[in-house]
Amino acid sequence: MDTSVKNLIVEKIKSSKIGQVDFDNLPFGDVFTDHMMVCDYKNGSWGTPKIIPYQPLTLDPSARVFHYGQAVFEGMKAYKDDKGQAWLFRPDENFRRINKSCVRLAIPEFPEEYFFDSLKTLLRLDVEWIKPGEGNTLYVRPFVIATQPGVIAAPSEEYKFMIICSPAKSYYGGEVRVKIAEKFSRAADGGFGFAKAAGNYAGQFYPTKLAKEEGFQQIVWTDSSTHEYIEEAGTMNVFVRIGDKLLTCPTSDRILDGVTRKSVIALARDQGIEVEIRPIKVAELLDATKNNTLKEMFGSGTAAVINPIQGFGYKGDKYELPKVENSYASRFKKQLTDIQYNRSEDKYGWRYKI
Amino acid sequence: MDTSVKNLIVEKIKSSKIGQVDFDNLPFGDVFTDHMMVCDYKNGSWGTPKIIPYQPLTLDPSARVFHYGQAVFEGMKAYKDDKGQAWLFRPDENFRRINKSCVRLAIPEFPEEYFFDSLKTLLRLDVEWIKPGEGNTLYVRPFVIATQPGVIAAPSEEYKFMIICSPAKSYYGGEVRVKIAEKFSRAADGGFGFAKAAGNYAGQFYPTKLAKEEGFQQIVWTDSSTHEYIEEAGTMNVFVRIGDKLLTCPTSDRILDGVTRKSVIALARDQGIEVEIRPIKVAELLDATKNNTLKEMFGSGTAAVINPIQGFGYKGDKYELPKVENSYASRFKKQLTDIQYNRSEDKYGWRYKI
Repeated sequence: MDTSVKNLIVEKIKSSKIGQVDFDNLPFGDVFTDHMMVCDYKNGSWGTPKIIPYQPLTLDPSARVFHYGQAVFEGMKAYKDDKGQAWLFRPDENFRRINKSCVRLAIPEFPEEYFFDSLKTLLRLDVEWIKPGEGNTLYVRPFVIATQPGVIAAPSEEYKFMIICSPAKSYYGGEVRVKIAEKFSRAADGGFGFAKAAGNYAGQFYPTKLAKEEGFQQIVWTDSSTHEYIEEAGTMNVFVRIGDKLLTCPTSDRILDGVTRKSVIALARDQGIEVEIRPIKVAELLDATKNNTLKEMFGSGTAAVINPIQGFGYKGDKYELPKVENSYASRFKKQLTDIQYNRSEDKYGWRYKI
Repeated sequence: MDTSVKNLIVEKIKSSKIGQVDFDNLPFGDVFTDHMMVCDYKNGSWGTPKIIPYQPLTLDPSARVFHYGQAVFEGMKAYKDDKGQAWLFRPDENFRRINKSCVRLAIPEFPEEYFFDSLKTLLRLDVEWIKPGEGNTLYVRPFVIATQPGVIAAPSEEYKFMIICSPAKSYYGGEVRVKIAEKFSRAADGGFGFAKAAGNYAGQFYPTKLAKEEGFQQIVWTDSSTHEYIEEAGTMNVFVRIGDKLLTCPTSDRILDGVTRKSVIALARDQGIEVEIRPIKVAELLDATKNNTLKEMFGSGTAAVINPIQGFGYKGDKYELPKVENSYASRFKKQLTDIQYNRSEDKYGWRYKI
């Protein structure tokens, strides 16, 4: 196996556990492949990446990640085409973003060659875990955690960069109805909502639990100052189709610069769809509902790819979206997955060969 | 040892490591006592708390705490008086607050008797680690982490509640100058800034690093919408003395309801000091600086108790505070530590006997 990481350490499992896995019944993110990547940061530099058997971590109870949430992650997917070749989708974007997240969380950036060489080595080793066929993917989770012991509230001087992989079917099932946030917020201006930081996620669990009790599956967050503008759905960016125009809000220090989001924008513009990237008022959604110009809403994200939104709730009222033919959501989902599974031309150079 | 927790499990160390510790040279939060408390949540309930030798944790790399920051903590201090009796300061407040934090982070609340009985048992077992004498304390860190494996972004169904203890000298040394935040923010309206959630801390490291490069030790955060009002310092609430009046901003969903903060307010009011709890504009600080009525600023928090602020920076300008005699900061620090070390009457019932 070629790799340009000198002394990349590979310790293979003795026997694979793949035979024990029911690939037709995979709860999202529950089963992990045979190997994982670990790279330790200590004394001011990243050490040699290691591919080792998937195994538990041993950490001091005072490790910073437990106390101060100094942790970031990424989400990517690997796909297998009909000829058995495995692919990633725009992993350069994930690499850039995890380092952007690292900077904001005061974590040392990770070297590019370590990332790609260990990623390729890991995925080639566990390539049997990537199953061909629509909807089958390998969810790849790079993450960094602060491991230095000590409860002083200061940046850690030790970290672990890891990659773990989980075979997956599609992430969301069924119809999604969202609650538009009126009281709770996800991120502050000047905060770190744009980063895939651990701390951005746990804070959404309680408001989401309350929204679920009202019959919604997810929350569409609004700006924390006025709650008048929609932002993102926590694990998805949000698109709105009014008439034939596609709207999405600009990225900012509150909103994740989603890889699927920017891919959808590129596809749409290339197909002559007018895309407006600007703040979207909740009031505009309500107006468009009234005059029947609100055709679609959908979320975009690595886990879900494209997730159509059937309805939304706001200030106690519930709104249903119409069923549209030739929806943008299904069009972009097909176009994206065709590229991801190597069923169509890759004119943008988004596919990355494993 | 009396305890009302049925089947509280106590497994003692074979030999103490206390002899190896240099109590005169203790970096904050680096050294831990012989024992720790662990209590696991599984299948919908908290199990039996265990006091066991301080030891590493073994967790799956996919444990939720690493990915989604589902973790909360508390900070308390134990003190030893001249007769060798150990005390805590208002632990009922910390208990109430950790459960408030738990609710906001979708973590199951912890039972009161488990908390107090295991806390007492742990501190009695490690009582030799609490050294008498001004400035010597045992920093007590209760915390909860989400331990369930699986990278789906949803609340964990398994948790560990733990208490670890670290002998400490005073937390902050020397003069503190703070930067008043103009761009970065700590918390959003509708967010979880009021909670001692792990995710509230790592986001402060990078802005604090930048502030340190400008010669400040800490940041005083401002509201994320306008940056016109001061809020808290991240690990301390902030007090301002203008003339002889003491000001502090109200607690909110962005601001921690500090135990030391509320103790200072009680002490001040009892001594006839006028305390105004209201939003404080940065502009008001600048005006007070100009007309020489800004007498003091100080932070309050468990780790620092009272930390005088000698100066602040705002929009590129630096402001120095005057040296005042009979400062409120030193008065409240003395009154609080006198209560904490059992050197004065405890008219508020704040001391808690171990």
